[in-house]
Amino acid sequence: MTVNIGVIGLGMMGRDHLRRFSEVISGAKVTAVCDIQRETVDEMAKTFAATPFYDADALINSALVDAVVICSIGPAHKEQILAAFKAGKPVFCEKPLTPGADEARQIIDAEVKTGKRLLQLGFMRRFDAGYQKLKQTIEAGELGDILLMHCAHRNPAVPESYTLEMAINDSATHEIDIIRYLLNEDIVAVRVDRPGKKTSRACPHLQDPLIVIFETESGVRIDDELFVNCGYGYDIRCEAVGEHAIAGLTGQALTYARAPYGYGQNIAHSCMERFAAAYDSEVQHFVNRVREGKALSGPSSWDGYVVALVCDAGLASLKDGEKQRVIVPQRPALYQG
Amino acid sequence: MTVNIGVIGLGMMGRDHLRRFSEVISGAKVTAVCDIQRETVDEMAKTFAATPFYDADALINSALVDAVVICSIGPAHKEQILAAFKAGKPVFCEKPLTPGADEARQIIDAEVKTGKRLLQLGFMRRFDAGYQKLKQTIEAGELGDILLMHCAHRNPAVPESYTLEMAINDSATHEIDIIRYLLNEDIVAVRVDRPGKKTSRACPHLQDPLIVIFETESGVRIDDELFVNCGYGYDIRCEAVGEHAIAGLTGQALTYARAPYGYGQNIAHSCMERFAAAYDSEVQHFVNRVREGKALSGPSSWDGYVVALVCDAGLASLKDGEKQRVIVPQRPALYQG
Amino acid sequence: MTVNIGVIGLGMMGRDHLRRFSEVISGAKVTAVCDIQRETVDEMAKTFAATPFYDADALINSALVDAVVICSIGPAHKEQILAAFKAGKPVFCEKPLTPGADEARQIIDAEVKTGKRLLQLGFMRRFDAGYQKLKQTIEAGELGDILLMHCAHRNPAVPESYTLEMAINDSATHEIDIIRYLLNEDIVAVRVDRPGKKTSRACPHLQDPLIVIFETESGVRIDDELFVNCGYGYDIRCEAVGEHAIAGLTGQALTYARAPYGYGQNIAHSCMERFAAAYDSEVQHFVNRVREGKALSGPSSWDGYVVALVCDAGLASLKDGEKQRVIVPQRPALYQG
Amino acid sequence: MTVNIGVIGLGMMGRDHLRRFSEVISGAKVTAVCDIQRETVDEMAKTFAATPFYDADALINSALVDAVVICSIGPAHKEQILAAFKAGKPVFCEKPLTPGADEARQIIDAEVKTGKRLLQLGFMRRFDAGYQKLKQTIEAGELGDILLMHCAHRNPAVPESYTLEMAINDSATHEIDIIRYLLNEDIVAVRVDRPGKKTSRACPHLQDPLIVIFETESGVRIDDELFVNCGYGYDIRCEAVGEHAIAGLTGQALTYARAPYGYGQNIAHSCMERFAAAYDSEVQHFVNRVREGKALSGPSSWDGYVVALVCDAGLASLKDGEKQRVIVPQRPALYQG
Repeated sequence: MTVNIGVIGLGMMGRDHLRRFSEVISGAKVTAVCDIQRETVDEMAKTFAATPFYDADALINSALVDAVVICSIGPAHKEQILAAFKAGKPVFCEKPLTPGADEARQIIDAEVKTGKRLLQLGFMRRFDAGYQKLKQTIEAGELGDILLMHCAHRNPAVPESYTLEMAINDSATHEIDIIRYLLNEDIVAVRVDRPGKKTSRACPHLQDPLIVIFETESGVRIDDELFVNCGYGYDIRCEAVGEHAIAGLTGQALTYARAPYGYGQNIAHSCMERFAAAYDSEVQHFVNRVREGKALSGPSSWDGYVVALVCDAGLASLKDGEKQRVIVPQRPALYQG
Repeated sequence: MTVNIGVIGLGMMGRDHLRRFSEVISGAKVTAVCDIQRETVDEMAKTFAATPFYDADALINSALVDAVVICSIGPAHKEQILAAFKAGKPVFCEKPLTPGADEARQIIDAEVKTGKRLLQLGFMRRFDAGYQKLKQTIEAGELGDILLMHCAHRNPAVPESYTLEMAINDSATHEIDIIRYLLNEDIVAVRVDRPGKKTSRACPHLQDPLIVIFETESGVRIDDELFVNCGYGYDIRCEAVGEHAIAGLTGQALTYARAPYGYGQNIAHSCMERFAAAYDSEVQHFVNRVREGKALSGPSSWDGYVVALVCDAGLASLKDGEKQRVIVPQRPALYQG
Repeated sequence: MTVNIGVIGLGMMGRDHLRRFSEVISGAKVTAVCDIQRETVDEMAKTFAATPFYDADALINSALVDAVVICSIGPAHKEQILAAFKAGKPVFCEKPLTPGADEARQIIDAEVKTGKRLLQLGFMRRFDAGYQKLKQTIEAGELGDILLMHCAHRNPAVPESYTLEMAINDSATHEIDIIRYLLNEDIVAVRVDRPGKKTSRACPHLQDPLIVIFETESGVRIDDELFVNCGYGYDIRCEAVGEHAIAGLTGQALTYARAPYGYGQNIAHSCMERFAAAYDSEVQHFVNRVREGKALSGPSSWDGYVVALVCDAGLASLKDGEKQRVIVPQRPALYQG
Repeated sequence: MTVNIGVIGLGMMGRDHLRRFSEVISGAKVTAVCDIQRETVDEMAKTFAATPFYDADALINSALVDAVVICSIGPAHKEQILAAFKAGKPVFCEKPLTPGADEARQIIDAEVKTGKRLLQLGFMRRFDAGYQKLKQTIEAGELGDILLMHCAHRNPAVPESYTLEMAINDSATHEIDIIRYLLNEDIVAVRVDRPGKKTSRACPHLQDPLIVIFETESGVRIDDELFVNCGYGYDIRCEAVGEHAIAGLTGQALTYARAPYGYGQNIAHSCMERFAAAYDSEVQHFVNRVREGKALSGPSSWDGYVVALVCDAGLASLKDGEKQRVIVPQRPALYQG
């Protein structure tokens, strides 16, 4: 069976998924595309031999579409997801699930009512082989009880449109999810520290870098350096400090060179490069679940909701610099195990 | 379209491909299995819901089968490949193409007559992201003209059935292919050096380690350490020494640890682990070409034939220790470009 | 000229210096030893062919002694240093200069009165080739303006006698000094964070690990993980994050191994091993200055005093968890440049 | 006691030793200098406050000189060494001991007659902490029996005066000595392979790179890449392949950087930089032995002689490409243990 995919939102991420379905993913094909820009719809429909839609709801309910991939802007997510749930169609939704936790909660409630997991959220890092291996190492007990984690999230540069809040909602959001994934527990407190200096590479409206400090239920302390104009590359670090040993991600370079500047290993230039295999893998995972008629798995609406709660606390701390508590409600049975 | 696959030969490699088609590969499904052991056929047919065949020819010509995956023992390859060519069915064949160069030549001649590339050979290293990046670095000219290469091929251990000749035909064969791939030129001479010592881990009939020295058309000198009972892991090294810089494969560990024994990075335990992604990728590549109705690409019968010529020279040198020349015939148009 | 050295305090550090003068350092010889334990004095005097003293003042004023090396316990330092200053004899003093900043201030005042730098403090890290290279890199401007630093100070284990306060006064003290050395500026604020978890390897009276956060005059934010029962080795990390690039200390292993546990590099077991060359180098530096009749250089009483101010602030923060300001008085001319 | 040193030969190496004695070495001072260039002698005598000599024999026999450091050109060594032996003065001699093995034999015979080791040869690598640690690892048995070694000796560039023979006599000579040191056995065969290509950076009279293959008494096979115009840095590699594990030298970088070109570690630019500590250490070792009135230790005349035998075999193989045997005579008792 080939899964017929409808893609909503044809910006950078949407187009990247169009290319992915065309070149990499097997068992699925894009049959329908939709965007608020008519011209873009027409162009993409032509390039990828898909049917053009100018209305998301129409696409979602079309018989041409078995499953929906949502790459629209965050504020549009809720309505589109609820429509898909109503149509009983599985959804792959780019993160964030919604701009705030309240809307995310409505999605949770709707999904729980359907009685089945219908949504996979685009937290692609869970499909990265390095993070998966790190999780195995932690779960195998080699490190003993985890006490601390040190993370860094560095982008070479961000556009002027990147706001201070996006450091939490767009960047830290990845660490928030992956910490929960690695440690199998929730984050209960957040504090954002503003260092005394900022890079001259950043736009005046930003404080860059920022340091965010998380605390989990069991007391693990995590610091996360968010540096989105670091200049030199896209560089992700994650180290878990345990009672008996330490483990973390390597730089993951496949090749080395010795050249006049010294010994060197490549650093990725972008998120797309660093997590290329993870992006492919998350989408293939989604397609496979749909093909097999199984309930969806991997990052869920619940994960999106809880991450949104932590982000909201982070945004509050960004304002006042205080440690903010996160109250995580009870997890519905649908999202357990 | 889903490609219906018939798998011939249900040993370790064949079973690994059965698992791969079942769990990883998309756009294909195994519909038929065959082996000389009836019980194995029945068991695998049941496990993977495929039709059992006790005769390779019957499987090849069955309407249940769109494409053939050959994992039988080397001496059986020629006949099976020729039958598939006759049936006009695309073949994925595990290496070696044939035990000797003469039989490989017959396959070349038959394939050329069909006028179309119908075979992809299982040199999975060409699908390894590290080798691919190394090739890009070489071709981008960053290293200047390549002068030397240093390779190592280390297995933790080999079974007693592993013969001295297999160091050439089973192990060095991978470096022979990948050197040609990386450098875009043929090997014209081989010499096998027997070091004065051998490991006590090896069976008495082996000389382990061996050093094989290759020379290419343009004069690049490559040394290849073959050490198949190295004890500590499956460890592949490849370094290209150029006029201006050096580049090579890293250890490719995804994670690191600091533990009481010191700083550590994982080393793969087996070829299957080290090249897991490459195995998946080569088979997906085969399936994609078949699905798209395209002529096959990637490692070809011609590569198998030329590697066999180099292996034959290597086996001669293994006997007398002399440098042996390799005469590579003209490449048919079918295999150019 | 050979410098005649008198060593006061024959505990672990004092004995290590006795060995060092005997085996490594040139241009100096230990002629006198002193401790509060008579038996220890007699034993060491015999082993190293030195004259035994049972009173520090007597040793300091003996004609047998050109220069004094103080390895006694911290509370004894002030009186011994002042006596040496009075005798006009150069002093090498193990850190901490004094247990608190007030006593350190008295030393400053006394030294300033002599009009000459007479004391080198045992902050050996300034003589470590790695830190020196890192300082060069920072000063060469390759990283741009420094924004953040990440440090870690990990010991395999500490004895039961190690108190919570020693995490600041004995461990963090090294980072406090080296941060000032690397950045050429003072620390103006300190905050100690107590993570929610502690290692089961630590004695009940400790909170281990701790995170200390420093802020410098210009606004650089530094986090320092103090983990003194990390179990796996003595592991020092220091990374400077600049506007354009990042630099830090490597693991500094001289050799690697590939063994059944994987790729490995050695991690030092102790401070003595990790900083062996730095210890030798700081003492040789002291001896050379004395031999050449020059005023002392390297880490000074002033450095000891300012580090003590920062430690006092750290101890206050250890109690209340609040950010504590450090007021650094004006630096006397003697310690400038 | 301070050792009075006379330095003969004031070229690059001689001047480097003058600086070393002046700045680094303790317990010794240069009192006399000699060279065939009068102006150089006068200049260096003035700069380093030493007595000028225009005749080596006069310096050697001067009462101003306790020990002789020979940095003259190779052909002058024999006569100077024999004169020092006659005068009963200890000698530190830069390598090579002599240009050929025959002259070296005469030195052996003369030293044996004195009944005492009077010469330390300038094979500084034996004083490199990395090689020392590698030797410890080998001798501790962690690797099991050593089967193979892989070495590389890469210089960024050599001057036009560098001849093809110098690849053996000046470059490979270091590996020849260090292999014997690491393995505690002699080399019994050498073969020089000329790769089919050479770098365009090399002068036309050179074949660069070369590969030299050594065989030891017990049968260890060592390959050594000599690449003296590699362009990118001074890069020394040494790996020992044992039955159970592998160990080798790391790149020994003290710091790392992440910058726009990627992750980087420094590579030394010259032998002087890479082996700076080893040069200091070998000379300090020499001075310490002399000060303590002990017979010399470390690399000996015998090592110089045997290395010369291996070099002679290497030069023969450089001509005909054949494997050349090395006959090592019985080691006199003076050089045992």
